[in-house]
Amino acid sequence: MTRRKMDFPVSEVRRYLEPGPVVLVSSYWKGRANIMTMGWHTVMEFTPSLVGCVISNANYSFELIRNSQECVINVPTMALLDQTVGIGNTSGADVDKFTKFGLTAETAEKVEAALIRECHANFECRLHDDALVEKYNFFIFEVVKAHVAATPKYPQTVHYTGEGVFMIAGKTVSRRAKFVRGL
Amino acid sequence: MTRRKMDFPVSEVRRYLEPGPVVLVSSYWKGRANIMTMGWHTVMEFTPSLVGCVISNANYSFELIRNSQECVINVPTMALLDQTVGIGNTSGADVDKFTKFGLTAETAEKVEAALIRECHANFECRLHDDALVEKYNFFIFEVVKAHVAATPKYPQTVHYTGEGVFMIAGKTVSRRAKFVRGL
Repeated sequence: MTRRKMDFPVSEVRRYLEPGPVVLVSSYWKGRANIMTMGWHTVMEFTPSLVGCVISNANYSFELIRNSQECVINVPTMALLDQTVGIGNTSGADVDKFTKFGLTAETAEKVEAALIRECHANFECRLHDDALVEKYNFFIFEVVKAHVAATPKYPQTVHYTGEGVFMIAGKTVSRRAKFVRGL
Repeated sequence: MTRRKMDFPVSEVRRYLEPGPVVLVSSYWKGRANIMTMGWHTVMEFTPSLVGCVISNANYSFELIRNSQECVINVPTMALLDQTVGIGNTSGADVDKFTKFGLTAETAEKVEAALIRECHANFECRLHDDALVEKYNFFIFEVVKAHVAATPKYPQTVHYTGEGVFMIAGKTVSRRAKFVRGL
């Protein structure tokens, strides 16, 4: 079950990332592709569309991303929870995760890393600043292209709390009338 | 309605921050106290307990935090949603936010900024690295003391999606049996 995706403004990816979901990061370098599960990320700017994230150098993905200077941040939903956990508990050094977890690699537009079709959103990223990579494994990416499923507007994302426990996104409430600025 | 708080291990604050809630950042410098609403943050390390966050220099809090090199990250729940929105839509240059929003300032143990009693958790922070403050308004703090309400274990946090809309934390599910490491 995969919904058709639409182009989405890169300056608005905060809608999906700011609530803090676990994401799947796909990477590619010299014939090697991988996926990792990642929960340590933050929006840093609207324009350019910047996202900072910690990718430990203990991960197989680190070398691929460090060298290719690219990745795709994919946003899974509750329907992919078991694959998300499995991806986080295996290493790309041992298995082809697309095959093992039954995920579909789609060609991205601006990077070589693949989009994961089954995810709700796919954000193509290029490395923007590696100033804190050596010290903290902290990469700052620019989202250069965004693809998002047309519905639902607020997907049931999964949010990691540690100890194997995930919080599932609940209902949404609007307080728009109380906002004085556009943020 | 405020629950009694317990000391909490600073290396485990990810339980509350990694799911990505909006937080209230309290600050203090030379007689001036303030609170801001903040949604752009990420855990960066367990030990030392590091949290990175974007605090725009357009905020009144920026100067207080830049100069004092401290803050408290407070985690509100659904019960404080309207105050959280109000705090994000007013400036400390104009109002005393503790008074205006009926919040109680409690003395912290290791920093001068106040704990907000009504929040579920309070994390006392000291500036750890300001390397990216000039360029991105990105502060890396070390959590030096953590206070958390004894119950509930998984509070109903609020997560911002933009456009005035918040996602409310839903139920939790465990996949602990599928985790091969302790993470």
